[in-house]
Amino acid sequence: MALVNENFLKLPVSYLFSDIAKKVNAFKVSHPTARVISLGIGDVTRPLAPAVIEAMHKAVDEMSRTSTFRGYGPEAGYDFLREAIIKNDFAPRGIHLDPKEVFVNDGAKSDTGNIGDILGLDNSICMTDPIYPVYVDSNAMCGRAGNLTPGGVWSNIIYTPCNAENNFVPALPDQKVDVIYLCYPNNPTGTVITRAELKKWVDYALKSDSIIMYDAAYEAYIQDKDIPHSIYEIKGAKRCAIEFHSYSKTAGFTGVRCGYTIVPRELTATTVTGERVELGALWNRRQCTKFNGTGYIQQRAAEATYTPEGKAQIQETIAYYMENARIMRQALTKVGLKVYGGENAPYIWLKTPSGTTSWQFFDQLLHGPHIVGTPGVGFGPAGEGYFRLTAFGTREDCIEAMDRLTQWLG
Amino acid sequence: MALVNENFLKLPVSYLFSDIAKKVNAFKVSHPTARVISLGIGDVTRPLAPAVIEAMHKAVDEMSRTSTFRGYGPEAGYDFLREAIIKNDFAPRGIHLDPKEVFVNDGAKSDTGNIGDILGLDNSICMTDPIYPVYVDSNAMCGRAGNLTPGGVWSNIIYTPCNAENNFVPALPDQKVDVIYLCYPNNPTGTVITRAELKKWVDYALKSDSIIMYDAAYEAYIQDKDIPHSIYEIKGAKRCAIEFHSYSKTAGFTGVRCGYTIVPRELTATTVTGERVELGALWNRRQCTKFNGTGYIQQRAAEATYTPEGKAQIQETIAYYMENARIMRQALTKVGLKVYGGENAPYIWLKTPSGTTSWQFFDQLLHGPHIVGTPGVGFGPAGEGYFRLTAFGTREDCIEAMDRLTQWLG
Repeated sequence: MALVNENFLKLPVSYLFSDIAKKVNAFKVSHPTARVISLGIGDVTRPLAPAVIEAMHKAVDEMSRTSTFRGYGPEAGYDFLREAIIKNDFAPRGIHLDPKEVFVNDGAKSDTGNIGDILGLDNSICMTDPIYPVYVDSNAMCGRAGNLTPGGVWSNIIYTPCNAENNFVPALPDQKVDVIYLCYPNNPTGTVITRAELKKWVDYALKSDSIIMYDAAYEAYIQDKDIPHSIYEIKGAKRCAIEFHSYSKTAGFTGVRCGYTIVPRELTATTVTGERVELGALWNRRQCTKFNGTGYIQQRAAEATYTPEGKAQIQETIAYYMENARIMRQALTKVGLKVYGGENAPYIWLKTPSGTTSWQFFDQLLHGPHIVGTPGVGFGPAGEGYFRLTAFGTREDCIEAMDRLTQWLG
Repeated sequence: MALVNENFLKLPVSYLFSDIAKKVNAFKVSHPTARVISLGIGDVTRPLAPAVIEAMHKAVDEMSRTSTFRGYGPEAGYDFLREAIIKNDFAPRGIHLDPKEVFVNDGAKSDTGNIGDILGLDNSICMTDPIYPVYVDSNAMCGRAGNLTPGGVWSNIIYTPCNAENNFVPALPDQKVDVIYLCYPNNPTGTVITRAELKKWVDYALKSDSIIMYDAAYEAYIQDKDIPHSIYEIKGAKRCAIEFHSYSKTAGFTGVRCGYTIVPRELTATTVTGERVELGALWNRRQCTKFNGTGYIQQRAAEATYTPEGKAQIQETIAYYMENARIMRQALTKVGLKVYGGENAPYIWLKTPSGTTSWQFFDQLLHGPHIVGTPGVGFGPAGEGYFRLTAFGTREDCIEAMDRLTQWLG
C-alpha cells in the first residue's frame, strides 16, 4: 500500500496566486467592460535584450549541424557561463570564486526549493517575515517546518519580522537556529540590507555554525552604491552562506529559465557525530542525480547578458522598471499612503490604510480602480496590513494605474 | 549547528560515469595517439530536426517583441504542448487524457528523481535490476533505500533481476512492495516488455495498492507492433501508474531539456489512516513550489516534433540510430558474443566473454580496440558480467568500432 508524504497535506489547500487569479476571474465575469491592470505577480513584460536574442539564434543554429550540435552538457553548467559569471558578477566586487563553486540551473526557484535536500530534517529554520513562499513551502513539504497553526505560523519556523516598526531591519533570532533564509533586495518588501546589518547575520552564522540561504535574485536592481550585491562581500560569508542568483528579473528570463547558485568550497555542515562535510560536494551529487543541466541555448543566452551590448541593454530595461517604481512611489506617497521599497528593488510595499487587512485592500483595489496587487499577508504573518505592487508592468499601465488610484483615493 | 542529510554519505563516493571518464582520461594521457571511440554515455549525436530548429527560431523572435514576449508560463506547461502530447502520443493508442494530467518538465531525469517527494519515506521500493541509477540514488538520498551493503545492494530495495537466465523477464516480487520502478524499453539492457508481462505488473499493483513508476523515455525506438508504448495501454494502469516521457532520445533534446510526466487523475495513494489522496494534486503542488515551468522556446521545440515534417524528420534520426544498432548487433553476434537489446531500443547489452567482469571487459575494450562502453555492474548487482553499448554514435564511429572489435576478438 503506497503511502503519500503527509507533510503535503499540512499545506494550505490553495496558494496565494491561485486565490488571486480566482478573485480576478470572478470579477472579470461580473464586470466584463472593466480593464483590470495587474501589478500583482512579479513577472516581467519587456522583451529580451537584442544581444540575448542574437545569441539564442546562433545557439539554435549550432544545434542544427552535426559539427556544432550539443547534447548533454555538464550538470552544473558550461564553463563559458560559469567563467562569465565569476568574471562579471563577482570579481569586480573582490569576490574570488572557482567555476566549480558555480552551479547553473533553470531558475532560482528550483534551487531555493531543492537546496533543503542536502540538509538534515532536524535543522531549525529561521526566516524573515514576510518572505518568498517557496522557502516556507519547501521546508513544509519535507516536514522541517512542523505544523501550520491557525495564525499562518509554522510551528518549527522561527520568524523574524520585518515591518514599519523595526524599519524592516530583522532582529537576529534570540534562540539557536541552524538554517537562515535571507532575501535581499527583499521579495516582497522591496527593502534592502546594509553591509553592517548583513555582517551581523554572517557573524551570527559563523558563531552558531548555521547556514545562510541568501537569495540575491533582485541584486541587479540595487541603485545605492553602499548596498551589498552579494553576501560574499562580507568577510567569512563563504564559510556560512549559499547564494542564489537568477536571470529572470535581471534580464527578463522568466520564460527562458536560467539562474545559478554559489556553493563555496569552504562551506561545510556537520554530521550528528560532528564530522564536517562539504556542502558543495553534496549539492553536486544532488544535481548530478536529479537534474540534467540547463539547456545549451539558455546558457548561451545567459552568457550574452555579460557582453558590453547585453549589459547596456539590460541596464536600460532595469532603468525602465525602476522608473515605473519611481512613478508609483511618487503617486502612492502623494495620496498619503506609507510606501516602502521600490528604490533598490522592483517591488513596492505599502501599508494598507488605517486597519484595512491585506485582503480587504485587495478587494477594494480590484473593485475600485480595477488594480490587482498581492496581499502582504500571503507572504507571511507579518505581512498582514501590507500590500505588494510590482514595477514590472508597462509604463502605460503603470501611469494609468496610478492615475486611477489617485482619483479613487482623492 | 547545521546538519547535513547523512543519507547522502551512504552513496558511493564516485559515480559510474565519472569513474569511466577518469579511466578514459588517464588512458588518453598515456596513449596520446589512440583515437578512442565512445559508445558509452547515452547521449545523442545527430542535430535537431529542421522543424524543431524553425520552431525555436520563431519562438526566439517572439521573445524579442513586447507584443509576443512570454514570461512565466504555467508551471505544468503550456496547453499547446499538453494538447499536442495527448493528441499524438496517447489518443492514437486509445488512451484518453486531460491536459491537467500532463506535466511538462525539463527532462525525465528531474521528474524520475523528484517524484519521490510526494511519497512517504516508509514505502518499500522494488526495482528491476540492472536499472537507471537515478531511481536508486534518489531513493537513497531521502533514506528510503536504506543502507548500501557490500555487494552493491541497498538494504531496503527489493531487486527483481533481469538477466539471460530469465530472458530479461523480471519476476513479480514475492513480498509486499509499495513503489515499483519499471523502465521499458529498458535502460540499460535494451530489452522490452510484452503486453502480457506488463499486465502482470499492473494487476499486481492494483491488487497490492502499489504505484508503478513507468519510465517510457525510449518508447519511440520500439519497432515491434505488439510492444506497448505506454503503460496506459493496459487496463487499470491509470489507477496505479505514473509515466515518464522525454524528448531527449525521441528528438535529440539532451541539450534542449524538455520532457513530460503523466499523473492520471484516478491515481491515488493513502495516508497512514487510510484516506486516499490524489497524487496529481500533490505533484502539482510540488511542481508549483519547486519548479517554475519549462522555457517557452523549449516547449515550442517540443510541439514541433508533432508536426508532419517534425515527425518524419525524427523518424529518420531514430532509423539512423536503429541502423547503428543493427550493425552493432550483427558484428557482435558474428564474433561470438551474446547480445541482447538493440531491436526496440538504442542500447545493446552484451554478455562479457567467459567470466570476465564488467570492469575487466571495460579495461580490455579500452586498451585493446580503444572502445569505451559502460560496465553493466554500474547499473546494479545483476549487471555484473554484462556491458552496455549505445547506438547513439555516428555511423562512421559505429562501423569503425565494430571493425576494430572484430579484429581484436578475431
